[in-house]
Amino acid sequence: MPLEKLSESRAFGGVQGVYRHASEATGTDMTFAVYVPPHEEGTRLPVLWYLSGLTCTHANVMDKGEYRRACAEHGVILIASDTSPRGEGVPDDASWDFGQGAGFYVDATEEPWAANFRMKRYVEDELPALVAAEFPVADLTRQSIFGHSMGGHGALTIALRNEGRFRSVSAFAPIASPLNCPWGEKALGGYLGADKAAWRSYDACALINDGARVDELLVDQGEADGFLAEQLKPELLAAACERAGIPLTLRMQAGYDHSYLFILTFMADHVAWHAERLKK
Amino acid sequence: MPLEKLSESRAFGGVQGVYRHASEATGTDMTFAVYVPPHEEGTRLPVLWYLSGLTCTHANVMDKGEYRRACAEHGVILIASDTSPRGEGVPDDASWDFGQGAGFYVDATEEPWAANFRMKRYVEDELPALVAAEFPVADLTRQSIFGHSMGGHGALTIALRNEGRFRSVSAFAPIASPLNCPWGEKALGGYLGADKAAWRSYDACALINDGARVDELLVDQGEADGFLAEQLKPELLAAACERAGIPLTLRMQAGYDHSYLFILTFMADHVAWHAERLKK
Repeated sequence: MPLEKLSESRAFGGVQGVYRHASEATGTDMTFAVYVPPHEEGTRLPVLWYLSGLTCTHANVMDKGEYRRACAEHGVILIASDTSPRGEGVPDDASWDFGQGAGFYVDATEEPWAANFRMKRYVEDELPALVAAEFPVADLTRQSIFGHSMGGHGALTIALRNEGRFRSVSAFAPIASPLNCPWGEKALGGYLGADKAAWRSYDACALINDGARVDELLVDQGEADGFLAEQLKPELLAAACERAGIPLTLRMQAGYDHSYLFILTFMADHVAWHAERLKK
Repeated sequence: MPLEKLSESRAFGGVQGVYRHASEATGTDMTFAVYVPPHEEGTRLPVLWYLSGLTCTHANVMDKGEYRRACAEHGVILIASDTSPRGEGVPDDASWDFGQGAGFYVDATEEPWAANFRMKRYVEDELPALVAAEFPVADLTRQSIFGHSMGGHGALTIALRNEGRFRSVSAFAPIASPLNCPWGEKALGGYLGADKAAWRSYDACALINDGARVDELLVDQGEADGFLAEQLKPELLAAACERAGIPLTLRMQAGYDHSYLFILTFMADHVAWHAERLKK
């Protein structure tokens, strides 16, 4: 798996890099961003995976997420992937919430998506293996994961399906239950077909109800988020966690919307929270 | 001067806004960004003006500059303007370092630029008057100014031409002397004509050599900046300050390039440095 370096720049004493590789999972080139904080040569650092929301590439959180100061302070690597395969020859849809930019972190089974839209396999298996091989500074025995909106859904479901892999999981304004919102209906219906039994392993609430567990959850949610009531529904996650006995810290943030200005406000909090658990 | 609100979002307890107005100086609509940090109602806050570099709009530093945490901590308003007039009917040039996105903070006298490219008047006079009228929270008796590259040039020259207006001035990788670099030759030659006497009030080193003064200067410059030797030339600014007895803190930053990853690394330092002087 050769890795092409697209850029590397110094930031807060570390290096913000962007890399591209040919993905077996998606059958396309995939681009991702890695921030490696300053560190003594030979030390290995824990890894925090960030999954982005609808329409985003690796670049949105890299440009707007304001994570580097906190990652440098805590000695944590942050890796941001793309949200779907892209490019000519890859199926797409005219809408912004389905197709390219909207992979939903699933392995599609429906045509024409099944050949390329395999973001579960990409994020769960291929990208970690690539990072392990190409970034010896990354200590993958210490991993955590978080994300925003569709990426919050991705972080929660990946952590729930892989019990014990992550030290911690958190989310900004996650889609709590794709089974119960228009974004989820459209995306999971399109990628996985009409049988909703197949959707359950891509729904944080259904996974919890079906027995999956994580030690605890941290979720920030803006109260002025225009998607709150119809799409995000943190109350469903709260109910599932309550029934399952999973400690959920759900912080409703007055006045905050769904934008990066919400994410960046609470980014350092989340990085610090993960760092504490990554260093135990 | 009616002001149109394009967006307002909460960030770090304050409000990041974007506004548009019809500019008399440029004869076009102009868009600018204002971050107002959290504050008690009725208090008035000092203002830090940020001027951006070539190709930028108000949005680049707003998206990538990572200034809000520091502005919230120190109680400072940050305002970012555009770098030129824009739009259909506004003259432009095919190159990225002249015309739209490259106003150089001058009032053009050459055709076809003279009608719209009046960024000196816009940034020095019109925008401050608009802010004074429309943002009662802004205390314009306490102002500072900084910028990056072409915007560093703008900050230095505006402060030098308006002795006593600003409590402090700093820059990231400024164009130290447009009289002595290809970017400056092209832009000032194009906007002001061949007579270099007319360029001197738009050249920080010439202004200092001609007697203009500021109390002190803070400049950060990346050593891995690809524009350092040919375009930026901080050594010319250092020599001018040395001759004039202006205390210059010039910090050469090993490994840093010309990108926002350089700016954002040192942004909080600059905001804190200005805040200290704004609160005296």
